Amino acid sequence: MYTGKARAYTNIALIKYWGKKDEHLILPMNNSLSLTLDAFYTETTIEFKESFTEDSFFLDGIKQDQKQTAKITAFLALVRQQYQVSLFAKVDSRNFVPTAAGLASSASGLAALAGACSAALNLELTDKELSRLARRGSGSACRSIFGGFAEWQKGNSDQTSFAEAIVSDNWEQDLAMLFVLVDDGVKDVSSRDGMKRTVETSSFYAGWLSSIDADLKTAKQAIAEKDFKALGEVTEANALRMHGTTLAANPPFTYWSPESLTVMQLVRQARQNGLPCYFTMDAGPNVKILVEKKNLAALKQFLAHHFSSEQLISANAGPGITLLPEEGSEKS
Amino acid sequence: MYTGKARAYTNIALIKYWGKKDEHLILPMNNSLSLTLDAFYTETTIEFKESFTEDSFFLDGIKQDQKQTAKITAFLALVRQQYQVSLFAKVDSRNFVPTAAGLASSASGLAALAGACSAALNLELTDKELSRLARRGSGSACRSIFGGFAEWQKGNSDQTSFAEAIVSDNWEQDLAMLFVLVDDGVKDVSSRDGMKRTVETSSFYAGWLSSIDADLKTAKQAIAEKDFKALGEVTEANALRMHGTTLAANPPFTYWSPESLTVMQLVRQARQNGLPCYFTMDAGPNVKILVEKKNLAALKQFLAHHFSSEQLISANAGPGITLLPEEGSEKS
Repeated sequence: MYTGKARAYTNIALIKYWGKKDEHLILPMNNSLSLTLDAFYTETTIEFKESFTEDSFFLDGIKQDQKQTAKITAFLALVRQQYQVSLFAKVDSRNFVPTAAGLASSASGLAALAGACSAALNLELTDKELSRLARRGSGSACRSIFGGFAEWQKGNSDQTSFAEAIVSDNWEQDLAMLFVLVDDGVKDVSSRDGMKRTVETSSFYAGWLSSIDADLKTAKQAIAEKDFKALGEVTEANALRMHGTTLAANPPFTYWSPESLTVMQLVRQARQNGLPCYFTMDAGPNVKILVEKKNLAALKQFLAHHFSSEQLISANAGPGITLLPEEGSEKS
Repeated sequence: MYTGKARAYTNIALIKYWGKKDEHLILPMNNSLSLTLDAFYTETTIEFKESFTEDSFFLDGIKQDQKQTAKITAFLALVRQQYQVSLFAKVDSRNFVPTAAGLASSASGLAALAGACSAALNLELTDKELSRLARRGSGSACRSIFGGFAEWQKGNSDQTSFAEAIVSDNWEQDLAMLFVLVDDGVKDVSSRDGMKRTVETSSFYAGWLSSIDADLKTAKQAIAEKDFKALGEVTEANALRMHGTTLAANPPFTYWSPESLTVMQLVRQARQNGLPCYFTMDAGPNVKILVEKKNLAALKQFLAHHFSSEQLISANAGPGITLLPEEGSEKS
């Protein structure tokens, strides 16, 4: 029996991952840049055992059905193949999120699973190797190996596509992110399906790719110079551009709900009031607001006129992945 | 003294005019296709008189100041230059719109002014020549010379850029457009400024241009085949694409308000309920819904749960420009 445990934190891209070059290897079309957050994380324990006749997956204590387990099983099959392991496994994951409002992320989940596998099988992977492995589970998971800012180097092969930490002199400790939960039951296009349709059909996709290098350069320079306005502006512009690509897909679609627009307008209004903050959005209607920690309380107060406290969840910069000691584990 | 009067109806583009190739001549970057509507029109009387020492402009009986008159004055200067006239003029315009909710359009206004000039100066212009002249006042005005469907041929010179009627076997008489007025005081970026910023800075603009030919072909085929679904789908997709371009401008901007998104969602919901209808939007938050006349009442009823009757203004296909007899006018 081999057991291992890991904790990984979710990350939010400031420069977005949007489109795959290789669906199987999960090689992205463009580099992305993220901030890992402390408020949302996954703890995963894995147990490889001779007596298991199939993989099983428990999420928050509840056994998941075959469909819900498919992504996990596919990842474990890869691990077995890559590291010559023949055992099935039981995966026990717990998502730690302030509410159940759909903030569980495949980034933290698959990063934690990769870490747990590495621990259980004693793979002694470097961060880079672990990032590559996590990438195979879910693209954005490769960035959750690192705390603070990370950049996913798109690469052009399994070997060359991985995330790296961005040197920041701990500036991320001065930042916060406020999640505004506005999910109103709009039917989702998954991130995976949305980026696929966009890459394949959107006449804006070339324009998206053409502006990425400049956005990354701006973002990294802003981090190096601790220039919050510059980082915020490029974060917001990049998110709007990502969401713009979906409007030229065939058929077109959007992740925005009316409430998303309301939050965007409030963010602009907050800035006009002298409170620097910038929004970003992913493949869903919730809005995330990048703000300096010193202004977080004021931002929450401003938004409290429009949203309940349950809708406003804040996070600080979070650490990288941790491989945890598994109490009472026996290795053989 | 020379006097003339004309009535012109506004038009809504189904395939949008979005970007100028020549700001002075008002040559567009792409062809556009519109439907002229009966519910919104402008009646303009013009009087050229030797005793006038400057141009003056009255809108709905109120004398407009210099800034409000600038566009009119510039157009009259062009007319004077083009047709060797040396007289100043008094322009008296009346906008006929069901409410005062900001639906007055420069398309009907400048088309009516061009028509009134033509009548007053006895220019005996063909529709094509009148369309070219109206274009110089406001690009989209060139389409309001025609009733029903019209296509603005972008051309590449003052001579070759004009609108033409699209043969439709009067199918437009089966169609209607429902305006949903959701203007909530969002500060506007004018159509002129918005398209300029987009052409100059948006990395999506090339993608916009690259899809226009296919959209036009689809729209014209739909009109020829009286295929409402096909016309509606390309109308909605084209509008979304136009609005997508603004999200990649620098700085990015949007004409959408939260209420605009609400209307879009309701339109999708109406379709799911079996009521075919499709939205379009211009440089502002109001949404216009293309619907078959036979389904207009049902659509209004569906939307009445969310909007007041003052917010729901319907229009049928409208006629082309009319040069009106000016009662009691004397010509010399």
